[in-house]
Amino acid sequence: MDSLDLSLPAPELTVVLSDVESVSGSETALADLVESALRDVPHLSVDRDGDTVVARTSLGRAERVVVAGHIDTVPLGDNLPCRVEHGRIHGCGTTDMKSGVAVALRLAAHLPAPNRDVTYVFYDNEEVEAEKNGLGRVARNSPDWLAGDFAVLMEPTNATVEGGCQGTLRADVVLRGHRSHSARSWMGDNAVHAAGEVLRRLASYEAEQVDIDGLVYREGLNAVGISGGVAGNVIPDECVVTVNYRFAPSKSEDEAAAVVRQVLDGFDVQVSDSAPGALPGLSHPAAAAFVAMVGREPQPKFGWTDVARFSALGVPAVNYGPGDPSVAHQREEYCDIAPILECEQRMTAWLG
Amino acid sequence: MDSLDLSLPAPELTVVLSDVESVSGSETALADLVESALRDVPHLSVDRDGDTVVARTSLGRAERVVVAGHIDTVPLGDNLPCRVEHGRIHGCGTTDMKSGVAVALRLAAHLPAPNRDVTYVFYDNEEVEAEKNGLGRVARNSPDWLAGDFAVLMEPTNATVEGGCQGTLRADVVLRGHRSHSARSWMGDNAVHAAGEVLRRLASYEAEQVDIDGLVYREGLNAVGISGGVAGNVIPDECVVTVNYRFAPSKSEDEAAAVVRQVLDGFDVQVSDSAPGALPGLSHPAAAAFVAMVGREPQPKFGWTDVARFSALGVPAVNYGPGDPSVAHQREEYCDIAPILECEQRMTAWLG
Repeated sequence: MDSLDLSLPAPELTVVLSDVESVSGSETALADLVESALRDVPHLSVDRDGDTVVARTSLGRAERVVVAGHIDTVPLGDNLPCRVEHGRIHGCGTTDMKSGVAVALRLAAHLPAPNRDVTYVFYDNEEVEAEKNGLGRVARNSPDWLAGDFAVLMEPTNATVEGGCQGTLRADVVLRGHRSHSARSWMGDNAVHAAGEVLRRLASYEAEQVDIDGLVYREGLNAVGISGGVAGNVIPDECVVTVNYRFAPSKSEDEAAAVVRQVLDGFDVQVSDSAPGALPGLSHPAAAAFVAMVGREPQPKFGWTDVARFSALGVPAVNYGPGDPSVAHQREEYCDIAPILECEQRMTAWLG
Repeated sequence: MDSLDLSLPAPELTVVLSDVESVSGSETALADLVESALRDVPHLSVDRDGDTVVARTSLGRAERVVVAGHIDTVPLGDNLPCRVEHGRIHGCGTTDMKSGVAVALRLAAHLPAPNRDVTYVFYDNEEVEAEKNGLGRVARNSPDWLAGDFAVLMEPTNATVEGGCQGTLRADVVLRGHRSHSARSWMGDNAVHAAGEVLRRLASYEAEQVDIDGLVYREGLNAVGISGGVAGNVIPDECVVTVNYRFAPSKSEDEAAAVVRQVLDGFDVQVSDSAPGALPGLSHPAAAAFVAMVGREPQPKFGWTDVARFSALGVPAVNYGPGDPSVAHQREEYCDIAPILECEQRMTAWLG
């Protein structure tokens, strides 16, 4: 394909964008198309960093909002090109989040004089390790590109505002024992058996539900992995349980670590990585106006998303996009056409 | 080295044999030396199958006994050549079981007219997968080579008779759940958490102690491995606990499987492999005579050994050798000189 036609309706544009494969690390072709299309729009100025494209209006409005979406997808599952059936677009990336990108591109091209200045961000490598994340790279290289009073991240939310995001912490719980031949097991000390108590505490732990700005964040503390064993005839001397704690954005990373250590008191808990959540910030005037425009009850975002990066930059941010998060990353991924049209219509109304 | 000097005292011969590396699969050089040395002994006839060498007297005695030892070792641990200090020979294979092989070679060379006919078996690949085992191969190819009224397997036993051996059974306990994103863990069903109850039952299981012919076999049922987990942000939908049951030789493999299924009732238990034990058979006259000659209280053998192969061929067998089993397979492996001399002296007395 030589160029993107931004005059296409958003559902058709979703199909076109999805059919350009852009698995994380291979976004250049799509980034080139996005950059080229936006450079043709007279009311935008365009910057690029790697495979991230940033376009903005500069109308001197009192407020600036950021509309952002990642252009990469998880690996294909033999689910391209797209197939459209009964008002539903099936294909890799349709919900997460080419449909959101399509809406943002439509707004960028067709709103020459929005009532708020708008910065559109199309970024790479959201679906992989945090250090590769294009939004994080731009935040390091050119934080001024992301400046704004409020940000909308077009993650799949079923066209509902999902405020903030929960934090995430991973830790290894390391059980140690003593090896012996399994034929003389009483000479050893079985580290895998010792993990039983860790699993019992995790299974019986009742996760908190935290109310912030009327949104109820439902936490979770879970084993996401376990591994132990030396050989089929050896009593294992080590077992590692990897736990993942998803915590409400009112908790700091340190507070989250303290919860995990308390639940697993007496065990060797080694925190391997964590990322703070983002408060919903729905009391901010720009956010309140946005929620009013969307016209649906806002919900908490349980998963960690890049709204936390905006939050860290001092920009309140919400998740809002046409996709259904429950089908993201699945071979059967799809996006309904109706919410794509609804999102475009509501955001157009909001931006005047 | 060109040839083995079987006139060397057994401790010196242990050093010589140990210094010829013979990690499982690489026994040919040592097998060649053993075969060549035994072919020079006029009162023996010699056969060979792969790297297993079998030599026998044919004096028409009323009874035939088999004296067997494996010539392979576990991989080196930077522990050759041997080092002799304070009456102790340090080095790979010294205890398991070049010292036993040295004693057997001495008997073969220096007892032209034993009171029982003797078949000496020096075999390969004991330390690896069962299907490679040299004794098993000979049992398939030429079972008559192993015929006898009684067998002594020169496994390390601290110069005590260890009767029979326990059976071993391995099974996978498969826990299944349902995946979900770990940020919405209540949508999933955590298979790793479910393993907690399996580990609890294993940890609280009181293994049986079974008295057979005055020997107390101490059983053990243990997790020897556990594995589960999809990714750091996914509730795992599968977890596998691998258990190893060491059971008294009075139980059949089916009875052993029934015990495991009963302890883990309600779980999906998949038996992956098992091997029966061997009854001690100490009431057999040849065994009783042997025990009397050794002059120490016989003990049960907890680990599985090739006495089970003799047992399956209808040949009662015991373990008896100069090595210390607790240092086998260790970098610090060693064998004391005193029990080597004792073993040779007692077996010489027994065979007249």
